[in-house]
Amino acid sequence: MFLDHHRQLFQEYLERQIQTREPQNLYNPTSYILQLGGKRVRPCMVLLGAEVVGGSPKDALAAAMAVEVFHNFSLVHDDIMDEAPLRRGKPTVHEKWDVNTAILSGDVMLVNAYQYLENYPPELFAQLMGLFSKTAQEVCEGQQWDMDFPKQSEVSLEAYMQMITYKTAVLLGCALAMGARVGGASPELTQQLYDFGKQLGVSFQLLDDYLDTYGDPKTFGKQVGGDIIENKKTWLFLHAQKNLDTSDRNALEELYTSEHTHTEQKIEQVKALFKKAGTPTALSHEIKAQGTQAFKTLEQMEMATDKKESLKAFAETLMGRTF
Amino acid sequence: MFLDHHRQLFQEYLERQIQTREPQNLYNPTSYILQLGGKRVRPCMVLLGAEVVGGSPKDALAAAMAVEVFHNFSLVHDDIMDEAPLRRGKPTVHEKWDVNTAILSGDVMLVNAYQYLENYPPELFAQLMGLFSKTAQEVCEGQQWDMDFPKQSEVSLEAYMQMITYKTAVLLGCALAMGARVGGASPELTQQLYDFGKQLGVSFQLLDDYLDTYGDPKTFGKQVGGDIIENKKTWLFLHAQKNLDTSDRNALEELYTSEHTHTEQKIEQVKALFKKAGTPTALSHEIKAQGTQAFKTLEQMEMATDKKESLKAFAETLMGRTF
Repeated sequence: MFLDHHRQLFQEYLERQIQTREPQNLYNPTSYILQLGGKRVRPCMVLLGAEVVGGSPKDALAAAMAVEVFHNFSLVHDDIMDEAPLRRGKPTVHEKWDVNTAILSGDVMLVNAYQYLENYPPELFAQLMGLFSKTAQEVCEGQQWDMDFPKQSEVSLEAYMQMITYKTAVLLGCALAMGARVGGASPELTQQLYDFGKQLGVSFQLLDDYLDTYGDPKTFGKQVGGDIIENKKTWLFLHAQKNLDTSDRNALEELYTSEHTHTEQKIEQVKALFKKAGTPTALSHEIKAQGTQAFKTLEQMEMATDKKESLKAFAETLMGRTF
Repeated sequence: MFLDHHRQLFQEYLERQIQTREPQNLYNPTSYILQLGGKRVRPCMVLLGAEVVGGSPKDALAAAMAVEVFHNFSLVHDDIMDEAPLRRGKPTVHEKWDVNTAILSGDVMLVNAYQYLENYPPELFAQLMGLFSKTAQEVCEGQQWDMDFPKQSEVSLEAYMQMITYKTAVLLGCALAMGARVGGASPELTQQLYDFGKQLGVSFQLLDDYLDTYGDPKTFGKQVGGDIIENKKTWLFLHAQKNLDTSDRNALEELYTSEHTHTEQKIEQVKALFKKAGTPTALSHEIKAQGTQAFKTLEQMEMATDKKESLKAFAETLMGRTF
């Protein structure tokens, strides 16, 4: 499959990094979460970023590891905040150990992520660090907005777009850009790859919102309708809330405030209201618009055609959810 | 008072950094903890480090801020783990807000600490970063050992010394060394200042252990006997446990396992056993030995006499607890 080579390259590097280390109560959880697997989308993007600008993916392995360790740090801490029992079908760190262990192991992972960048010479290191820290800060801000939204009576679609941009998309942009920088790209091309990754990240997250309600239960990894059951204020809800007339809006808000035992019935009622507001169509359009934006960015890059094709293929695999 | 000038310089810098920022639920807690005060020992050490090597304390302000923000990040997360309700007489972040807010605000503080170092040119930045990350990692490891000790039946004095070295002392060494590096010190002098700060940190922590049991209630900031009440395995306990005969050791361990309502009586009994083991005298000797080590390191530095006097005066103020 596309990127299998990059994934394998990264996986081998990662496994060489994992070793038993004292104090074990600090480092065993970090090895555990890093070895739970996952698709390794972000580190593959770092290697791809290096490759498409003519650099060597191998040189980008340490940067890829920084991004993956950071991503896993954020999963460990987010899982505490969300009280999530499972991650990739296995117990989360705070479940398998405890909350204190998950906090401290997460902390040391964030530090370790930075340390992987020490593999680069000072000038490059400083450039990577600047982007990495800015991104890390934005990921924290995105997570905060995500935690704030359920307590807010009004959340605009713009605020939601900013939340998913920060919480999810900027790290994809950062991954491509860091790889590009390691591969020797100009600041301009690095910025374009950053934008491309970020735009792709936004459409990916919006597609996730869409599939959560309209996906095929056979191929969608999570429970279809899960966001509705959990009253999550996703793009679908916020769009419908904005575009329904008063009585329908009240009905939707009512459905999202009370606990429902008949979840199937709730899902159907909510979907009927979404349809009435033209929401699924509007979201499809939005996803396409974001994708078009990403491809426009791609077209503007000064890059050999076969490299552009690689990026396009990556985008299609990511959006095809077969990655 | 000694270092008042440095403290004021830092305080003014810090206050310029504090501003209302979105999302407020993320940044208000960071402003809150940073403005709770404290003695600002670590940032003052950064400024002092720059000064004694002939540099300008002002140039070291960003590094001082990095160290202070990191220190406060560790306080916010440690307070969650220790379930501490108060910090400097005020509600801790997880009490005033909640645990999730304290986790995420701590995370962004760690990132922000790194970002302050971006104020330095790449070569210097890379040097500072290496030391800073290594120190941050050790602080996490020290905290982990500290959490592990209560669950371990045997803790050696050596393991305890390593725990306090990592949890407390290395950040003091790092503070002096970062200041020295900003001030243009040679790698050798930087290392000596690091060692000096670390040795001072160890004696400071041991003195804290000593005063917790033998301090004057009028001048010691915390409740005298607090460590004994909480069954904390400090140097005193571990030394006595090692040096008492079997029946006395059993008595000591018994006193440290059960809940006691007559705390005054417990404290007296424990102190009697400490005395029998020669523990208070042994700890005094250990504190002096660590101090002697620090002063030996100081003597070896190639540095003008008045600068050495500044460091000596700082050490005396720190150990005199009047800082």
